[in-house]
Amino acid sequence: MSKRPSSPRGMRDFLPNQVKHRKEIAQQILDVYESHGFAQVETPALEDLAFLESGQGGDNEKLIFRTMRRALEIEEIQKCTQSKDLADFGLRYDLTVPLSRYYATNQPLLPSPFRSIQMGPVWRAERPQKGRFRQFVQCDIDIIGESHYSAEVSLICATLDALQAVGLDRFIVRLNDRRILTGLLSACGFEKDDWYLILIIVDKLDKIGIAGVKQELEEKQYAQSAIDLLIQTLTQAEQNDQSDFSAIASTLPSNMDQEVIQNLIKISQAVKAQSEGQINLHFDLTLVRGMGYYTGPIMEISHPDMPGSIAGGGRYDEMIGRFINEKIPACGFSIGFERLCGILGEEGKGSERLALMFKEEDDLGAVMKEARVLRSQGWKVETYLLGAKVKGLMKKLSQNGFTHCKRAGNDKDIEKVVDQE
Amino acid sequence: MSKRPSSPRGMRDFLPNQVKHRKEIAQQILDVYESHGFAQVETPALEDLAFLESGQGGDNEKLIFRTMRRALEIEEIQKCTQSKDLADFGLRYDLTVPLSRYYATNQPLLPSPFRSIQMGPVWRAERPQKGRFRQFVQCDIDIIGESHYSAEVSLICATLDALQAVGLDRFIVRLNDRRILTGLLSACGFEKDDWYLILIIVDKLDKIGIAGVKQELEEKQYAQSAIDLLIQTLTQAEQNDQSDFSAIASTLPSNMDQEVIQNLIKISQAVKAQSEGQINLHFDLTLVRGMGYYTGPIMEISHPDMPGSIAGGGRYDEMIGRFINEKIPACGFSIGFERLCGILGEEGKGSERLALMFKEEDDLGAVMKEARVLRSQGWKVETYLLGAKVKGLMKKLSQNGFTHCKRAGNDKDIEKVVDQE
Repeated sequence: MSKRPSSPRGMRDFLPNQVKHRKEIAQQILDVYESHGFAQVETPALEDLAFLESGQGGDNEKLIFRTMRRALEIEEIQKCTQSKDLADFGLRYDLTVPLSRYYATNQPLLPSPFRSIQMGPVWRAERPQKGRFRQFVQCDIDIIGESHYSAEVSLICATLDALQAVGLDRFIVRLNDRRILTGLLSACGFEKDDWYLILIIVDKLDKIGIAGVKQELEEKQYAQSAIDLLIQTLTQAEQNDQSDFSAIASTLPSNMDQEVIQNLIKISQAVKAQSEGQINLHFDLTLVRGMGYYTGPIMEISHPDMPGSIAGGGRYDEMIGRFINEKIPACGFSIGFERLCGILGEEGKGSERLALMFKEEDDLGAVMKEARVLRSQGWKVETYLLGAKVKGLMKKLSQNGFTHCKRAGNDKDIEKVVDQE
Repeated sequence: MSKRPSSPRGMRDFLPNQVKHRKEIAQQILDVYESHGFAQVETPALEDLAFLESGQGGDNEKLIFRTMRRALEIEEIQKCTQSKDLADFGLRYDLTVPLSRYYATNQPLLPSPFRSIQMGPVWRAERPQKGRFRQFVQCDIDIIGESHYSAEVSLICATLDALQAVGLDRFIVRLNDRRILTGLLSACGFEKDDWYLILIIVDKLDKIGIAGVKQELEEKQYAQSAIDLLIQTLTQAEQNDQSDFSAIASTLPSNMDQEVIQNLIKISQAVKAQSEGQINLHFDLTLVRGMGYYTGPIMEISHPDMPGSIAGGGRYDEMIGRFINEKIPACGFSIGFERLCGILGEEGKGSERLALMFKEEDDLGAVMKEARVLRSQGWKVETYLLGAKVKGLMKKLSQNGFTHCKRAGNDKDIEKVVDQE
């Protein structure tokens, strides 16, 4: 026998019970989001490559699956000087960048503020490894056109409700603000051009510790006074209770923008109040989030039993305006759907299925009519052709996932499928 | 203001009410299919290009969006002698070809016979035109591992039930068999090598008429005796009542395989019987269906008010076996989902949405808590920041799709949004 073919590396087939379980989780999330006034939209899987590569996507732009232009003459290919000239579209690597294009395209038809849900696959040409896929589902909500911090509060509350609806609890919501990070770096005396690289180092704190961050900064030979002030602030913040936002705020240099800090405190207070104190909120000065496009508050939700985060997002007020010469505030929160399915397991309960058994010589029209009647009574009915062999029938029915069976014919009873080994 | 960006040509954005309407239609179809014992599976959007181009897909193979290999050196590109050497994956152009790979991959984990549902996008690089898209949804059911004609009957009954569930009626089910077509051509005296091209001409009968078919066949200079016999048979069939399968069968040359013809008659009788005579079935000798992979009965469902078909399918017993050196009978039926959505319209009813209005100075935590209580009462609630301007508020709420509003605060009433122009 020849070797079985497989799906492309890093891309998965889903079996029926997996599809069912994933759809149930997705639907529970969707129901919560809809109850919060969000509405689902869809964009194509492909976008113009020039748009996907316009610098919004950070490192993800390196992972684009590009589609080749059609009707390419071989002469044209051989004269090409860079590979991307041969491609015109790319598969989306996230849902936020396409949403900004969608909003710019459809703005006249959309309410303002606009609360969108997106749930769908994205593609990244990553090296396949355990738990990392090249096609995976993201699940985003965004509020476009609202500059008030109520947008962040709405996104956090909706996401917490969604995670609770699928059966999780005991979350930690970690908050920070890109402007607090850059304000801190500025107050410490770092040069603006260095901020981005410094943030990448700070982002590693939970892996390399404060001593590791200090060492990496010193290796890059930034001003020692700036390094010392930053390390001192981060150390103080680490010693404080992260759930005490005012205490963390008091460790920050006093010449920083107080309005930005107060804004973050207000977000935490509103989320805390609506949950009647059930939610843990942390002011995490080391929360950076990789993507380049954030401009204000950033947030993540994690679970005490798991490393990493289950959901993440933030404010990106500069992205949409690039298309339509109009500043459009925007803020989003994304649940890592594959992560969530991994946590919740992929069993999926079987449901009751009835095999309506018939023989070659039966009147198939009558059998189909009987199936119709049984369906109208709520059964999931599959017609099942009986062979000559009766032995092992129950075992076969059981292996095929049937819970009940019935010999076709109105005088026969429905039986439970029992597999007596 | 700069020009608004658009989605890639031939690929669509969907607005919230469109997504909602499409999902409702999809769910109604899914519910029916599940009640018939089918279960949904999913495959990746991308498949290995060599597999997609292996000859199963007929003309669709010319329309593949190919993804470029990553890390291609420019020297490699310039030395390339055929464009497809630069690509390794392709976006699927249908759901049947990937299903055959899926079944071969996952066979040990699947029941037999296996009844699958697939619902998802496919991509074809066609020239965009009205009603034809480059990304569109297909909706397929297949029965794999059943050679008995009950598979065809099950597929037709499930598809009819699904179309009825979304609100259509008065269908015509057109049936034929590839072996009847080739048997007829053989009996007329055509050479086997010419059959495929002749079928392409016969397939045009509803556009060019019998005289047109005759003329095209004569232009190709096939044996005149064969042409005459074929035209005579088709003419006789056209003069008969297509719903009388025995009458049509009697017009066929007597040296054809009678078992194949009886098989088709049995399918029609079973479908007719289970519908208690409500369904119109036609034996359509000119039904060919384009795809190359069919090996037995082929079927289409059409509606008297519309040209073309709403659903189509047939038996393809040779496809899956190619992978695993084992003959696996298979049969499928596909609803043209975009066609269906076009017929059913894309309105989508709005649902009740409540704006919970607050002011900047309100306690946002209390507002969010109130929203939570209203949601628990079944409302879809969106928090809504009131500006200084009260004038035109109702109009704005109405434009934004709110049906109800309420000023935050427990002593306030829920009001209907009335837009008095």
